[in-house]
Amino acid sequence: MIGGALGTALRREGVARQVIAFDCDPAVASRAVERGAADVAVSDLREVADTQIVFVAVPLDQIVAVCRLLISYLSAETILTDVGSVKAPVVASLERIAPPVRFVGGHPMAGNEGSGIEAADPAFLRGRPYVITPTGFTDRQAVTQLADVVRAIGMTPLVMQPEVHDRLAALTSHMPYLVACAAVLSAAAEPESLGVGGPTFEGFARIARSPVTLWGVITRMNRDEVLRALREFRGRLDDIEKSLETNSVEPLLERAHDVGQTFAGLRSR
Amino acid sequence: MIGGALGTALRREGVARQVIAFDCDPAVASRAVERGAADVAVSDLREVADTQIVFVAVPLDQIVAVCRLLISYLSAETILTDVGSVKAPVVASLERIAPPVRFVGGHPMAGNEGSGIEAADPAFLRGRPYVITPTGFTDRQAVTQLADVVRAIGMTPLVMQPEVHDRLAALTSHMPYLVACAAVLSAAAEPESLGVGGPTFEGFARIARSPVTLWGVITRMNRDEVLRALREFRGRLDDIEKSLETNSVEPLLERAHDVGQTFAGLRSR
Repeated sequence: MIGGALGTALRREGVARQVIAFDCDPAVASRAVERGAADVAVSDLREVADTQIVFVAVPLDQIVAVCRLLISYLSAETILTDVGSVKAPVVASLERIAPPVRFVGGHPMAGNEGSGIEAADPAFLRGRPYVITPTGFTDRQAVTQLADVVRAIGMTPLVMQPEVHDRLAALTSHMPYLVACAAVLSAAAEPESLGVGGPTFEGFARIARSPVTLWGVITRMNRDEVLRALREFRGRLDDIEKSLETNSVEPLLERAHDVGQTFAGLRSR
Repeated sequence: MIGGALGTALRREGVARQVIAFDCDPAVASRAVERGAADVAVSDLREVADTQIVFVAVPLDQIVAVCRLLISYLSAETILTDVGSVKAPVVASLERIAPPVRFVGGHPMAGNEGSGIEAADPAFLRGRPYVITPTGFTDRQAVTQLADVVRAIGMTPLVMQPEVHDRLAALTSHMPYLVACAAVLSAAAEPESLGVGGPTFEGFARIARSPVTLWGVITRMNRDEVLRALREFRGRLDDIEKSLETNSVEPLLERAHDVGQTFAGLRSR
């Protein structure tokens, strides 16, 4: 999904002279070409040896293994980057094994509840943040080059430490996903309730039906930050519950409303 | 928002010979006509005396007062119905004072995060449930007539007791709203986090920025069911948190995924 969306955007914006698709399933790489996500599909990794940037868009728990395999094919000019949803452990593993290949961790904060090439849609990238997570070991020029590519496809590069990414992603993505799961499970305790679900429930149900295998790995690899975010969440839910009991919930709802407005303002800029 | 959407749908589907708009602010009623949500705007309640159905689409805490005022203008042939988000207290008050006017409680499970006539969009009604909440005091024929109108505008009538509606609405709407507020407040504890918010956070932020005055009244009027739904939610969140600690979260995520799929299946039928 993310690889296909990036490939399509790179081609549409004329950023890349050529986009090459590789997948362990050759049919998927061919499908990427048919959908306009790549110029050519290759089945031999030697054919990616001369690329300027390799985007590794594979399941989070396979990024390190796939990059390890790739590195022997790449030259020192190549920038190797991943799009995984958890950064600290991936970056820590790869910055040790990548050199002389230049590795930079990345995470486009975009997507939908689907997965695979058929769910790839470059529209979901536009205007969204693309986090880039260098460390003291990262080649500065590679960071600049990746940020330039990110801007060229209409996304906003945000440079931060891998650990900061993981804390913020736990708060804005991993915790909200788990909270949506808990909410739909509570509603399902009354089987009739699904029949009356309106737009609020629809949003939660959409989040809950995103791929379980992906989320199982994300929440495991970022467990400490996820548990910390859940503790923060419980504190805010306690505040809301107490204020309901004393008929004074509005000030908290106002603050939540303001956060929602601020966020909408950031996205529409 | 709801009144304007219903008026537009009633006119488009040719269900009503005439749709009459009344608002305490005459400019709003005129705007409804301009937007195609009504055929005429009136500023004197005597002009609604002969209507077959009156939809009272006003803030939840004003429904009873507005209906009390309206009743003296209406004939025994008129069906009086509201679109409030909490049903038991509204229905209990109105079924005592409405006769000989025939009152039926109702709640279209539809809308967006906006409010007012400018946010009215009949598209959000299509395919959605419209809960109708008769009691032992309700005229059966009025229920049938309202259900026919609901079907004619492409919505699905669901008949249930007011108390059942309020329990299910707490689980699928009121609790999820509060949970979304708690989640955006937790994220906002780290000001940088808003910058990295992706599609999951966007859904939560959209819910959190729906009108606070509306939600303050809803959560107050349905407080017992809301608190019960929050307790159920906390139980499911505890389950998820414990399973994260023992690296066994997938079965719960699978169940949440299945609820999300089931819900999507119900809506696409």
